[in-house]
Amino acid sequence: MISKNTAKYIKSLQQKKHRKLEKSFIVEGAKSVIELVKSDFRITTLYATSVFLKDAKQSISEVKNKFEIVEVSEKELASVGTYQSNNAAIAIAKMKKNELVSSEGGFAIALDRVNDPGNLGTIIRIADWYGIANIICSDDCADQYNPKVIAASMGSFTRVNLFYTPLASYLEKVTIPVYGAYLQGENVHHQQFNHEGILIMGSESQGIAPELERYVAHKISIPAFGKAESLNVGVATAVICDNIKRGQKQSL
Amino acid sequence: MISKNTAKYIKSLQQKKHRKLEKSFIVEGAKSVIELVKSDFRITTLYATSVFLKDAKQSISEVKNKFEIVEVSEKELASVGTYQSNNAAIAIAKMKKNELVSSEGGFAIALDRVNDPGNLGTIIRIADWYGIANIICSDDCADQYNPKVIAASMGSFTRVNLFYTPLASYLEKVTIPVYGAYLQGENVHHQQFNHEGILIMGSESQGIAPELERYVAHKISIPAFGKAESLNVGVATAVICDNIKRGQKQSL
Repeated sequence: MISKNTAKYIKSLQQKKHRKLEKSFIVEGAKSVIELVKSDFRITTLYATSVFLKDAKQSISEVKNKFEIVEVSEKELASVGTYQSNNAAIAIAKMKKNELVSSEGGFAIALDRVNDPGNLGTIIRIADWYGIANIICSDDCADQYNPKVIAASMGSFTRVNLFYTPLASYLEKVTIPVYGAYLQGENVHHQQFNHEGILIMGSESQGIAPELERYVAHKISIPAFGKAESLNVGVATAVICDNIKRGQKQSL
Repeated sequence: MISKNTAKYIKSLQQKKHRKLEKSFIVEGAKSVIELVKSDFRITTLYATSVFLKDAKQSISEVKNKFEIVEVSEKELASVGTYQSNNAAIAIAKMKKNELVSSEGGFAIALDRVNDPGNLGTIIRIADWYGIANIICSDDCADQYNPKVIAASMGSFTRVNLFYTPLASYLEKVTIPVYGAYLQGENVHHQQFNHEGILIMGSESQGIAPELERYVAHKISIPAFGKAESLNVGVATAVICDNIKRGQKQSL
C-alpha cells in the first residue's frame, strides 16, 4: 500500500523542480521498469503489482544494489503516476551525473531547443537504435527525466546518455566534424560522413540557433520529393542517422 | 459568435460516428486551416478570429467554392475545439470519397493496424515529404479525419490521399512489387527498389498481420547499430521511404 505522504512524494516527481531537488525520477510501466531494473541506474523503491513481481522475478533477483519493493494495486499505480492505467509498476530511481560518457569515437547528437518531451524520447530511442552513446542537449531542451520522455524512449533512456550544457561553449571545444540539419543544406544522400562527428538538430519551429552556425562545418538537408514544408525533428534525426550509418558495420 | 447548437455540432465532429454521419470534419489552427483553404477540400464554414481573417485574407479570397465565415473569439475556438488554445480558426470541411487517386506510378504506403492518431498524422506528413500520393489503410487504422491525425500531419492531410480497405483483398489485385517492413528482413541499405511499389508498415506492437505475408515479395529491415528493440512506426516509415527515394529525382 502507498501512504498519503508517499503518494504525494511520487506525484511531486512529475515536476522538474522536485526531481532536481530529490535527484530522483519515476519510471512507469512494465517495459520501462524492466529495462530500468536491468540497467545501471540505482533504484530506490519499486511499487509493483503482484502479477508484475511474479513476471519480473528473475530480472529483479539479478540486481546488485538492493532496493525496497512495495506491493500495490493497479488503482494505486494509476493514482500516483502519469499513466491512465498501469497494471505493472512504478520505480523511483536516482538521476545520473550530468556528464558525457566515453563512446570510442562514433557520432553524437546535439539538440538545440528540442523542448517537446515526446520528440526527445523518440530521439533517445533512435540514438539507441543507431548505437549513439551521447546526446548533448541545450539547457532549454525537454528534461530527460520528464515522465513523457521516459515513456517515449521505450526503455532506451537506460542506454543513451544525455548531457545538458550550453551548446555554443560545448561546440567551441570539439575537434571532430560538426554537421547541422538545415532546410537548405547539401543533400544528405551525397554527403560523405566521417566515422565520427556531431549532428546538430534544431527545434522544429526555429531550427538551429544562428549563433551556433559558425560551428557547423557541413550543413545538410534531407531531400524532399513532395510538398511538405518540413519533417518532425525525431523523424529527421532518424533519416540522417540512417544516412550516417549506411556503410558502417551494424550490430545485428 | 457560436450558438449553443453550433457548438454542440462542432464538438460532435470530434467523434468518428458523427463525422461519418455528417461526412464532415474539423480542421484547427492557423497552419492547418490555411493549407485547407488552399486545397481542393470543400469548406462549409470557417470560424475565425478577426486577426486570422486579416492575415489569411488573400488565401481566403482565392477560394472558388465560397463558404460561410463566422468571426469568433479565441475563447470560443478553444471551447469547441480540441486545442487547449487556438488564436486562429476552426474550419468545417466535407470528407472526400474513399478511393485511390491517380499517382503516375511511384510508391504507395499500406498501413496495417496503425491505430495511433499521432503516428498516422506523422506518416501522412512523411508521405507528403517523399511525394507519395496514396496511403492505403486497413479498416482498423486510426481515422484520417481524427483531429489528432489532422494536427500531426501539419497540413499534409490536404495533399496525401488515404484509402481505407481490407488490405488482403487490395494486395491480392496489385501487380507492382510489394515490400514489407519486418524486424528480420533484408537490410534496406542493400535493397534495389523498383521505381514503383507498395511499402507495407505494420502496427508497432504486432507488426504486419501473418495473413498479409503471402503478398510480400520483399521483406526488408532497417539495420540496427545499437540495442533498441524497434523504432516508432512513423520513424521507420521515413527511414525506408528515404532509402526508396535515394537515387530518384527530388522535387526541390
